[in-house]
Amino acid sequence: MEKSKVGEFHFVTESYLLDFRRRITIPMIGTYLLHAASIHAAQRGFGFSDMNNRHTAWVLSRLVIEMTEYPGMSEEITLYTWIEDAARLFTNRCFELVNAAGKSFGFARSVWAAIDVETRRPTPLDVEALDVFKVDRPCPIEKPGKIIPVENDTPGEPYGIKYSDLDVNGHLNSIKYMEHLLDMFDIRMYEEKQIRRFEIAYLSEGRYGMPLALHVSETSPDKYSMAICNEGKAISRAAVTWTATPSNLL
Amino acid sequence: MEKSKVGEFHFVTESYLLDFRRRITIPMIGTYLLHAASIHAAQRGFGFSDMNNRHTAWVLSRLVIEMTEYPGMSEEITLYTWIEDAARLFTNRCFELVNAAGKSFGFARSVWAAIDVETRRPTPLDVEALDVFKVDRPCPIEKPGKIIPVENDTPGEPYGIKYSDLDVNGHLNSIKYMEHLLDMFDIRMYEEKQIRRFEIAYLSEGRYGMPLALHVSETSPDKYSMAICNEGKAISRAAVTWTATPSNLL
Repeated sequence: MEKSKVGEFHFVTESYLLDFRRRITIPMIGTYLLHAASIHAAQRGFGFSDMNNRHTAWVLSRLVIEMTEYPGMSEEITLYTWIEDAARLFTNRCFELVNAAGKSFGFARSVWAAIDVETRRPTPLDVEALDVFKVDRPCPIEKPGKIIPVENDTPGEPYGIKYSDLDVNGHLNSIKYMEHLLDMFDIRMYEEKQIRRFEIAYLSEGRYGMPLALHVSETSPDKYSMAICNEGKAISRAAVTWTATPSNLL
Repeated sequence: MEKSKVGEFHFVTESYLLDFRRRITIPMIGTYLLHAASIHAAQRGFGFSDMNNRHTAWVLSRLVIEMTEYPGMSEEITLYTWIEDAARLFTNRCFELVNAAGKSFGFARSVWAAIDVETRRPTPLDVEALDVFKVDRPCPIEKPGKIIPVENDTPGEPYGIKYSDLDVNGHLNSIKYMEHLLDMFDIRMYEEKQIRRFEIAYLSEGRYGMPLALHVSETSPDKYSMAICNEGKAISRAAVTWTATPSNLL
């Protein structure tokens, strides 16, 4: 019974998707998580099509990824995902990433809401249906919290939303928020350090041609707050904690 | 025997990877092709690791994709790939895309060279080994040809290569060339038309921070030539042919 609640997915890292360090990236892990979430939900009757039939859609509100290690080339990854709980407006979905030796190297937490596809306003979740799949399984990372606003600290780097940034709803794709934010760090950061924790809050929808400004500021040693703003208003915030790359991986 | 020469791969289109038209994109098809090419080669002893062991690496030189239809959400795609021929410096790999009903909706052709990983210069292919896998199977699309240079026709749009653009060799990722080029077309093009043929030539390697200029110019009705330049010299050229989207897909 627990088995049918927890989704298990298998990936093999592919060379043409790795970064210049030959390691998987946070946006790539994000893609794995969304893939698993979407199939896990669909197989249990609350996927994209099921939601669409009720004129609703899932909206990713928060995502936190914590990584102790980053797999390299052609490594097998097992990803587990499960529903931690569901309340009237939000449901928490957790993830655990395990390597071929059975060792956990990452955990993630996501917070989802449902919206009405016409009004784009939040709509109550079917808590009873989601509760059936609730699992009490440890996800030992801090829940998403408040992210320090930094848009008034820095001038911001301009970015215009393009065709390849758009998702099926014509809004900035969840993974592209991550990509554009992480591109703000100089390549030297990636050469010397790795991201231990990446947290993102999706606040409102980015649209085609929207003149965005990307902000980043160090709030304490190795901790950065980021914001994506449209006319001064944050449509997304993120927090990134860096750590020294273990010497055996350099 | 033929079966073991032709690689067969299965994909299911995923909602979070589709564009705003809820259709798969050219870069996404490119990712499927690279995935299939990479596994097909590895399973036959001339993959990334095999090449690396000989201090060589595959380099994608040309890619052409022709599409008659673009699958939508949760559609099953079967992708076939095979070696058409191999000469001293280049080998031709073909692809066919087939839908769940068994109907072909796309073909692709790719031209690959091998380079020495130290000198980055072309190195002779093991033609005899590649010839073993050669298949005489139709790939009814025009081979990649000469692309009209347009970098002197237009001022060019600036683009700086970022962290997320880099591949395992620290160069601009093959798929990212496509993404940045296709982002130059206004969203209205994608609303009204679809790409019938996309052709790209990879001429030299894009590096981090390189100040690129992206050029596009209509060379005849619905035909566009594109170029990515570094200090006036093209590192890539592309040619895109658009066609009206079938009315049942609008």
